[in-house]
Amino acid sequence: MRQYALGIDLGGTGTKFGLVDEDGQVLRSDSIPTQQYPDIVEYCDVLCAGLKRLVEAEGLTMGDLAGIGCGAPDANFYTGCIEQATNLPWKGVVPLAKLISERMGVKCTVTNDANAAAQGEMIYGSARGMKNFIVITLGTGVGSGIVTDGKLLYGHDGFAGELGHCKVDYSGNGRLCGCGQRGCIEAYASATGVARTAMEIITATTQPTLLRQLPDIDHITSKDVFNAAEQGDLVAKQIFDYTGHLLGMKMADYVHFSSPEAIILFGGLTKSGHWIMDPIREAFEQNLMPLWKGKIPVYVSILKDSDAAILGAASLVW
Amino acid sequence: MRQYALGIDLGGTGTKFGLVDEDGQVLRSDSIPTQQYPDIVEYCDVLCAGLKRLVEAEGLTMGDLAGIGCGAPDANFYTGCIEQATNLPWKGVVPLAKLISERMGVKCTVTNDANAAAQGEMIYGSARGMKNFIVITLGTGVGSGIVTDGKLLYGHDGFAGELGHCKVDYSGNGRLCGCGQRGCIEAYASATGVARTAMEIITATTQPTLLRQLPDIDHITSKDVFNAAEQGDLVAKQIFDYTGHLLGMKMADYVHFSSPEAIILFGGLTKSGHWIMDPIREAFEQNLMPLWKGKIPVYVSILKDSDAAILGAASLVW
Repeated sequence: MRQYALGIDLGGTGTKFGLVDEDGQVLRSDSIPTQQYPDIVEYCDVLCAGLKRLVEAEGLTMGDLAGIGCGAPDANFYTGCIEQATNLPWKGVVPLAKLISERMGVKCTVTNDANAAAQGEMIYGSARGMKNFIVITLGTGVGSGIVTDGKLLYGHDGFAGELGHCKVDYSGNGRLCGCGQRGCIEAYASATGVARTAMEIITATTQPTLLRQLPDIDHITSKDVFNAAEQGDLVAKQIFDYTGHLLGMKMADYVHFSSPEAIILFGGLTKSGHWIMDPIREAFEQNLMPLWKGKIPVYVSILKDSDAAILGAASLVW
Repeated sequence: MRQYALGIDLGGTGTKFGLVDEDGQVLRSDSIPTQQYPDIVEYCDVLCAGLKRLVEAEGLTMGDLAGIGCGAPDANFYTGCIEQATNLPWKGVVPLAKLISERMGVKCTVTNDANAAAQGEMIYGSARGMKNFIVITLGTGVGSGIVTDGKLLYGHDGFAGELGHCKVDYSGNGRLCGCGQRGCIEAYASATGVARTAMEIITATTQPTLLRQLPDIDHITSKDVFNAAEQGDLVAKQIFDYTGHLLGMKMADYVHFSSPEAIILFGGLTKSGHWIMDPIREAFEQNLMPLWKGKIPVYVSILKDSDAAILGAASLVW
């Protein structure tokens, strides 16, 4: 009998979910807007109704499900709870796994979204066959899933892998990060980090740049910067150089910690191709111990964006 | 039948070795000067003769040994070799485990010296009962042994845990480290790092300090700085503040990586008590994500210096 799993990618803006088969095919998927449900009970009611619709539409029953996997920011694998999330509408400790399991009658496993991405890479993506690697997710925040000896690294309390909050500026005057600290790499290499860098450079220079002509200059995206770079815009190149340099040098630290076989980057920023990957790889190599120089490839995830997070979450089940 | 193990602590200056019982008692020990044997074959001959003497002196035979464990700088658990060591007389790849096993007729397990220290802490020291912790060794270099989920973290190639070569200065103008990189924490928090800081501060100031009166001012030790600090020397305090600040802030990064239950410091610098531990703990707390603030104790190893490294190495056997 074939087995199926439901995968949920709970994000700050939207929640995507899908029905996945054993081969990693997303058979059906749907989404709901996370921010529209400030009440977690209502959110879970709507989410689970959506999950049930997927199962029924495929002509299946709950008995055909091996389980439900969910990746969410600040989610704890050990407790099944989202704890003190900074970018979600629910405060405090939310027993997400329990709320979903109760409604579905099927076991639900929860983990941090970047861990789900790492699990997805290991089963379906660039990390197939690897037992030691690090996935860094570059999105609204900078997350990480660390696999050592074939298993996700959870640490003492389930929260290991907060690499986005390692610092690139220890002066105390670095950029304020969402976590309350200053100088975290997340404040530079996340989507908002890139926008802040763009604004800083545009403000500090009189150099002509296409970025000044954008209708919403306060919300510059890495896509905007990419488009400008492709047209030869030097300020755009400078933004990618700055961002890539900081991220690459910090990635070298991570290698010194866990000696991975490879680092896999995932998320919006990686779509800027060589503009961002060249400075990342250059700074990475520069800051590695001689022992590792030239030995640790930095890959961009090969998983389709729309499916990767759902597949990663579903893969928690297998 | 009681089982015994031989533990070898191979250091850049001397090699200590001992016969250990199952309860972690060092029954007999001896040492040889590492640097006097530029030929690895001669070194192993002399070392193994010494090991055999310990076994015979205790009235035992090789059959009573469960095995031999050896901690050495740049040693690889996977291959049993010392590889490209920077502070040892032997160049290239040295098949240490094989050379010792052949001479002794007993299996020899080799690992990096800081991993051996971590193993010792887990079995006999401050980390008893912990499954996730980090040991940082502060000696000639800065090493680390990382335990996650009850096991030493080796990474893809056996070299995980080079925390001493994570950087505190990314400018490219930081201190040159023995590894060839600039700005590594090892260049600041090792024994020579402290001496360099002392010389820098003494040179940069006209402040009176007892340290100027030392007979060998080029080789100031943390013990010298401690003695001065105890007498109210402000320059000595400044040296500890600077060193502790850098180490503490870097230690926060390590927590963000593996979420340990505790960090355990081991080695000469820790003997300076509150003078060094206060600034370490202060900078550590300052740089932690709110999630971990106040939750991760920083301990000083409770193992006796003379025994700890031998015990750690021997514990590889059990």
